[in-house]
Amino acid sequence: MEQKLAELKHRLATVSDLHHASALLGWDQQTYMPPRGANARAEQLATLDRLAHEFFIDDAVGKLLDELTPALAHLGYDSDDTSLLRVAQRDYAKAKRVPPELVEELSRAAALAYEAWTHARQESNFKLFQPHLEKIVALEIKQANYLGYTEHIYDALLDQYEPEMTTAQVQAIFAEVKKELVPFARAVIANSDRVDSAVLHREYAAQKQWDFGVEVINRMGFDFQAGRQDKSVHPFTTGFGLGDTRITTRIDLNFLPTALFGTIHECGHALYDMGSPAQFERTPLAGGASLGAHESQSRLWENIVGRSRGFWHHYFPRLHEFFPAQLADQNVESFYRAINQVKPSFIRVEADEVTYNLHIMLRFELELALIEGKLKVADVPEAWNAKIQEYLGIIPPNDAQGCLQDVHWSSGSFGYFSTYSLGTFFSAQLWDTATRDLPTLPAQIERGEFAELLQWLRVNLHQHARKFTLDELARKITGEPLQTHAWMRYLKTKFGEIYGV
Amino acid sequence: MEQKLAELKHRLATVSDLHHASALLGWDQQTYMPPRGANARAEQLATLDRLAHEFFIDDAVGKLLDELTPALAHLGYDSDDTSLLRVAQRDYAKAKRVPPELVEELSRAAALAYEAWTHARQESNFKLFQPHLEKIVALEIKQANYLGYTEHIYDALLDQYEPEMTTAQVQAIFAEVKKELVPFARAVIANSDRVDSAVLHREYAAQKQWDFGVEVINRMGFDFQAGRQDKSVHPFTTGFGLGDTRITTRIDLNFLPTALFGTIHECGHALYDMGSPAQFERTPLAGGASLGAHESQSRLWENIVGRSRGFWHHYFPRLHEFFPAQLADQNVESFYRAINQVKPSFIRVEADEVTYNLHIMLRFELELALIEGKLKVADVPEAWNAKIQEYLGIIPPNDAQGCLQDVHWSSGSFGYFSTYSLGTFFSAQLWDTATRDLPTLPAQIERGEFAELLQWLRVNLHQHARKFTLDELARKITGEPLQTHAWMRYLKTKFGEIYGV
Repeated sequence: MEQKLAELKHRLATVSDLHHASALLGWDQQTYMPPRGANARAEQLATLDRLAHEFFIDDAVGKLLDELTPALAHLGYDSDDTSLLRVAQRDYAKAKRVPPELVEELSRAAALAYEAWTHARQESNFKLFQPHLEKIVALEIKQANYLGYTEHIYDALLDQYEPEMTTAQVQAIFAEVKKELVPFARAVIANSDRVDSAVLHREYAAQKQWDFGVEVINRMGFDFQAGRQDKSVHPFTTGFGLGDTRITTRIDLNFLPTALFGTIHECGHALYDMGSPAQFERTPLAGGASLGAHESQSRLWENIVGRSRGFWHHYFPRLHEFFPAQLADQNVESFYRAINQVKPSFIRVEADEVTYNLHIMLRFELELALIEGKLKVADVPEAWNAKIQEYLGIIPPNDAQGCLQDVHWSSGSFGYFSTYSLGTFFSAQLWDTATRDLPTLPAQIERGEFAELLQWLRVNLHQHARKFTLDELARKITGEPLQTHAWMRYLKTKFGEIYGV
Repeated sequence: MEQKLAELKHRLATVSDLHHASALLGWDQQTYMPPRGANARAEQLATLDRLAHEFFIDDAVGKLLDELTPALAHLGYDSDDTSLLRVAQRDYAKAKRVPPELVEELSRAAALAYEAWTHARQESNFKLFQPHLEKIVALEIKQANYLGYTEHIYDALLDQYEPEMTTAQVQAIFAEVKKELVPFARAVIANSDRVDSAVLHREYAAQKQWDFGVEVINRMGFDFQAGRQDKSVHPFTTGFGLGDTRITTRIDLNFLPTALFGTIHECGHALYDMGSPAQFERTPLAGGASLGAHESQSRLWENIVGRSRGFWHHYFPRLHEFFPAQLADQNVESFYRAINQVKPSFIRVEADEVTYNLHIMLRFELELALIEGKLKVADVPEAWNAKIQEYLGIIPPNDAQGCLQDVHWSSGSFGYFSTYSLGTFFSAQLWDTATRDLPTLPAQIERGEFAELLQWLRVNLHQHARKFTLDELARKITGEPLQTHAWMRYLKTKFGEIYGV
């Protein structure tokens, strides 16, 4: 069996190498690739993704999995080898249903759609993106049908990002949250004049913004020997193995939070990837459990840590050294309130913690309608604007600030968005447990010390990499299934205090 | 046959995509990859290179080539399809002899050796590089034996970079050149005090050096929509398809020529790649004919154009605007003489035109000895120093300025070096023909106009991409085989005038 396991791992390593190569081509496309490189890049990505798929769904892989699974079952559910077989089997069963030609077509379409999207967004012209999105949606529906589902077609897509989570579950969670969130958001927004955020809109030199962000994430534990940060239209995290995790950020000269919290958010993702155990390298166990688990890390660092009073107790004086003129009239408290202003706004990644999940619900509902065939791509801008008015009472002045703002649809990432909310809810659940285990964590953050928090996350979450589902992890770490009340309590405490509601 | 040709092209396109992906991974390794990414990168490159090789040497490819070659012979030697079959057949016959395992091993060893080399060079410690170079040399010898040869083991390696060129031919060319070059170099060096190059060693701000270089290559025709420039330890050109050609440069604050002529040199390569016809994309015909043909372009732009009096007639006033203080005591003539100072020096890529080829001969002889097994890797530093003393009368103060200066051995590029000289000789031959066709070219260069020269190169050389060998191209374009007298005449005229010898 040892030899068979070695053979399986060798085959999976080839697949992993191809995925990593594809990821690097994607990173390059979003960071440095010259515009005219797009067509060739689309073909290269299509080829790499097709080959990775073909090598993975090789019957020999299936045979090895079938032989090894019963033979190694005695090692126990949690063991590395059994987990590898379980996760690989799960991935294999899904992949096997999708023909390589579709993988190739989706990959090519996504690479071309990305270029069209950046252009459309720049020009704020949805028409430039529309034919690409139509193609992507059609291919996603095709893929969902190949993948199969029992309840809802969208389940097939959601499952790619959040294994074993269903549309109905997400809908139930969202409905539950909405009940409390919508009236709470309304109450806070009614008091929004209690917070002044003008300071955030002053002019902040790009290089200084960059340098401050780097200083912060360095301290959080981002290892620049094993990663780097670059700029891109839409911030993201990717990686090509344990020693090479890449994050990107973008800088708005006149809005400080864009780069600052974007950088911290992506660093949260990166720390998760950097904590993946070395023995999982080049296997399907490497990386994070799911997108929801991943977003729990990015959102925890961005919000629970990065937007906390304690964090700015430590960092405001330092930020003041970078921007003495811009912050001359500020103190920790006024700055803390400013970065926590709750106000309906257009851009999801810059939304406050109270309205953020409403942005997600909007996207989730639109995606559902697109995949169900109830919404035509041509009608997306109108539907978007209607939804954001319904949820937030505002209408974007243009599509760049509306339905063109996110990169996800261009890259074919249908099924992804709800994981931002799931991760957000999970982050509060994790934080509750972490502070129960380590009551001095808030005090540590006030001193700009993050090592113990990172260590706790490493031990409790990161070390499991992709071994378990989000629900399994929630139970294992917090003793409860994924739930929302920790987050709702966190939200109400924090913003109730700021807004006096 | 049409269907079979399409099938062949489809198979070759997959191979091309894998090569391009591998090239991007290599580019990234030399530009942005964090240090700890090296091991994973080595595995990824090994996998991509192995797969590209396996897909290429697939028996089905051989069968298609065998069927199509006679069937399409009637199209004539020069036709695109016949040329594709001829070139692919030549590549296939060679590749077929090399087992994929060796390709994988070489690729992995080279990726790791590159990291070791940058480190060794930084520390000027050959011992850090030695075990890697030993491995590479052993693998290169193995590869040469697989590839086979009739006269000399080195032929097998040389042929990878300069198809159908033999060691004996290079030796004959070098011997012929040496006869005239060595006494001429001696005479010029004896008069080296006639030129003062102190101006080049003043302090030049990095960003301004960068900006000036970009301005120049923009004007030469480098298309920044279809390419970009980055920084690396050793400058190089690579590409991932017609719309995406990458060059790198490096900047020495206290030596102006490093970035300036390095940038122009790489731009020369890039212009060649950018001129490859669109219909050859994703086939073995895309790109340049050989390394010698490639170096003819880089060396032509760098030296015959970039180090000419006419070029600086136009560009000196502009450079003066960038660096008024540093160039305050200079005029076109003094600057022209400074950049053409002939003086024995340690770094090949910064060597003057007279001593440059002596640097190449030195490397060629050392490589030959290494591959013949007559020189041990451990003895390379000593052998290097002895040779450079023999050729140039100087001994490097350390290995960083000696045997560790070039990237080639770390990347397993044995057989490459002599093509720099072949290209240099060919560049003068091309220039002779171009100025015969277009007598106003020198006057155009004095006005900073390069479009007609580029167009001439496009029509006469670039459009053929990889269809013909260097010798075929020389005959086709200049009416003569590759020869050295045009270059010798160019050299003697230019430097005879500067040094009065």
